[in-house]
Amino acid sequence: MEKKALILFGHGARDPRWKEPFLKIQEILKETEPQQIVELAFLELMSPNLPECVAQLTQAGVENITVIPVFFGQGGHIREDLPKIISTCRQANPQLQLSVKPAVGESLEVLQAIAKYCTHEQ
Amino acid sequence: MEKKALILFGHGARDPRWKEPFLKIQEILKETEPQQIVELAFLELMSPNLPECVAQLTQAGVENITVIPVFFGQGGHIREDLPKIISTCRQANPQLQLSVKPAVGESLEVLQAIAKYCTHEQ
Repeated sequence: MEKKALILFGHGARDPRWKEPFLKIQEILKETEPQQIVELAFLELMSPNLPECVAQLTQAGVENITVIPVFFGQGGHIREDLPKIISTCRQANPQLQLSVKPAVGESLEVLQAIAKYCTHEQ
Repeated sequence: MEKKALILFGHGARDPRWKEPFLKIQEILKETEPQQIVELAFLELMSPNLPECVAQLTQAGVENITVIPVFFGQGGHIREDLPKIISTCRQANPQLQLSVKPAVGESLEVLQAIAKYCTHEQ
């Protein structure tokens, strides 16, 4: 069976606590999909970056990777930076099936959950 | 009755399309909570900024504002920049009730919606 993995791709930040929600999403996925490999990778300021993460997974025998951009808006990072990085990853790993989902801010269910949170009483 | 408003506070970006998910959250809130005033404000690169947005709302008679940081991680922007901006807003509007929610990335329901999106088949 083809070995698959997900990569949660975030912007990155100087403060290590910035990463906490990404670790929590990873934890939720480990509980709900225990057979699923889920890694984190970052555009800048945190490691690993996406090419490093992809290289580690392919070395571990992963043949199919889906990258999920954990970004709200689709600006320059998603429309310009990410396609270049993905192209680099594909060139470095020509056998790999590598796909990219739309950013999580494109998901109506995610936006509905945010809208619900906005009107929760604290 | 006290006049209230919500402000969705985002980072901002150069690409105007970056703002689309924020507009969609605003639209969902207008449908589900039609009596609720909901505005957008940005840290940088987009307008209005938070002090401008707060000033416009208070001039329109709003007495109570809740700011919702639409950020995943709580790094320097939320832990350092935002408290300074809020302090400026409070000094400029001493009669205003101004509160700040934790960033949306602190909401378990939001993270669960993201986790669910990650494993959807496209």
